[in-house]
Amino acid sequence: MTKKRIVSGMRPTGRLHLGNLFGALANWKNLQDDYDCFFFVADWHALTSDYADTKDLRAYVKEMLIDWLSVGLSRDKATMFIQSHVKEHAELFVLLSTISPLPWLERNPTYKEQKAQIANRDLSTYGFLGYPVLQAADIIIYKADRVPVGIDQLPHVELTREIARRFNHFYGSLFPIPDPILTNIPKLLGIDGRKMSKSYNNALYLSDKPADIASKVSQMVTDPQRARRKDPGDPNVCNVFAFHKLFSKAETIQRVDAECRAAEIGCVECKKIMAERLAAFLAPIREKREYYENHQEEVADILREGTEKARAVARETMEEVRSAMKI
Amino acid sequence: MTKKRIVSGMRPTGRLHLGNLFGALANWKNLQDDYDCFFFVADWHALTSDYADTKDLRAYVKEMLIDWLSVGLSRDKATMFIQSHVKEHAELFVLLSTISPLPWLERNPTYKEQKAQIANRDLSTYGFLGYPVLQAADIIIYKADRVPVGIDQLPHVELTREIARRFNHFYGSLFPIPDPILTNIPKLLGIDGRKMSKSYNNALYLSDKPADIASKVSQMVTDPQRARRKDPGDPNVCNVFAFHKLFSKAETIQRVDAECRAAEIGCVECKKIMAERLAAFLAPIREKREYYENHQEEVADILREGTEKARAVARETMEEVRSAMKI
Repeated sequence: MTKKRIVSGMRPTGRLHLGNLFGALANWKNLQDDYDCFFFVADWHALTSDYADTKDLRAYVKEMLIDWLSVGLSRDKATMFIQSHVKEHAELFVLLSTISPLPWLERNPTYKEQKAQIANRDLSTYGFLGYPVLQAADIIIYKADRVPVGIDQLPHVELTREIARRFNHFYGSLFPIPDPILTNIPKLLGIDGRKMSKSYNNALYLSDKPADIASKVSQMVTDPQRARRKDPGDPNVCNVFAFHKLFSKAETIQRVDAECRAAEIGCVECKKIMAERLAAFLAPIREKREYYENHQEEVADILREGTEKARAVARETMEEVRSAMKI
Repeated sequence: MTKKRIVSGMRPTGRLHLGNLFGALANWKNLQDDYDCFFFVADWHALTSDYADTKDLRAYVKEMLIDWLSVGLSRDKATMFIQSHVKEHAELFVLLSTISPLPWLERNPTYKEQKAQIANRDLSTYGFLGYPVLQAADIIIYKADRVPVGIDQLPHVELTREIARRFNHFYGSLFPIPDPILTNIPKLLGIDGRKMSKSYNNALYLSDKPADIASKVSQMVTDPQRARRKDPGDPNVCNVFAFHKLFSKAETIQRVDAECRAAEIGCVECKKIMAERLAAFLAPIREKREYYENHQEEVADILREGTEKARAVARETMEEVRSAMKI
């Protein structure tokens, strides 16, 4: 039986942090064993929010590929490529735009949300309004069966499904309607207790060295009710404990949980234990990262191979699309 | 001195009529002597208004090229091609969409006008809202210096200019800001006195035979105040006289003008004279049309040549665009 196909992309916004890893990448790594995976660096999508400042874009794209390989995405299991290197996405975007009703885009909940959140850039652009149409093109051009997403991205997948259905309605059933695969995302906050984000300067990066990790973890906000060492703490509201649950062994998690509640362990010590586990978790990723940084030609080759494979599929689909639309 | 470059496109909507000829094509024919002309069949634009019914699109595209050649566009003077055959238009469309402010598109006067006029199709689509962005891509990808337009298209050229300026502002001066060349368009109404349009079924086609012409002209609405043969007429409000001014000789125009006002000539006779002149005007066009219909491989070759030339220019521009945007 042939594997079902998965398509997913990530905007290149710089070095990846733990939020990115557990928000998507860790899931991609698992999926590549069971699915025919197409993963792309969404550089055109990066432009929709950062059109005015593109000076780091190329470096970010390269960083992202190295990050992907470092966490274990494999050329033998996944097709990795850069969106803008497969021009067929743009052609399909033009064609889908002609059948995409404006109200579908205007009522997209994340559209208004993101516009409100990103206040320092003007996102009232045609491209920003239409990025779910470009996303639909990105996905259906490979005839994806499944799309892995976090719950906040569900409305986008719904739009992709609607656009694919509308195409099939007008021009015949060409596209499978992709189903979302909901990703369970552990809640890892930044060291200041806000959402982990590059722009908040509160992130732990995949490339952080043990000394960086120790320093950042030592600054992490813990249970705000535990003002003094002798106060008992509540691990359920502690961001450090959320990290323990991901990186420490079961017995450590159990012990830290109990000792925190009994004020038997202080935050300094608790953080130290976690920082060591996190450093150990990141060590092989960092090592692979160094390997790929020193073997750029291998990265370029993986990219070349992925691009060729993606192009071949996209070109075949576009021939079918043109034939179906009689253009 | 190198010639200035002109870019213009036409939506393939079927056989061309006299309104199309004098609205654009006659002007293109003159311009090709003095400018480096790029003329394209805008099949993607045809989709923005007719996405639901594309069954005739390919035939219309072929008809249009034959019409162009029949009226005298020449492969030696102009580069003729089909928009969808140069995918780079789509890539530039994606990139320009990220910098095109939505309010610029929403306040586009022809957007609301066309939406109101074309009531039988749902034009509240993302593609229809964005067609001036695609137009901008169509034009600036060839670094056009001039764009020939009728006065109603001026707002679109203004949008192209604004988008080109905005690109240059963000990424450096890559694109010339194209100037409109205003086309003086003689007012030729359809045989029922409304705007000449295929959809009104009131048009005189370039391919009409003398018998069709005689029959259609005989049905033409004249001065409505001239109810009887012995009533004097007013040529200034007569559509047939507008045709005389284009197709008859100066002495005929003068005579018809005077005799109509004096009720010395009847509408039947006046129409007959005009129909003959019109048939004579269209005869060489119809002949060339027959030639190209019988030499389809020559048409295909002209198209191939034009497409290659257009692609080469578009590809070079896109390399500069990517380099400027650092993508």
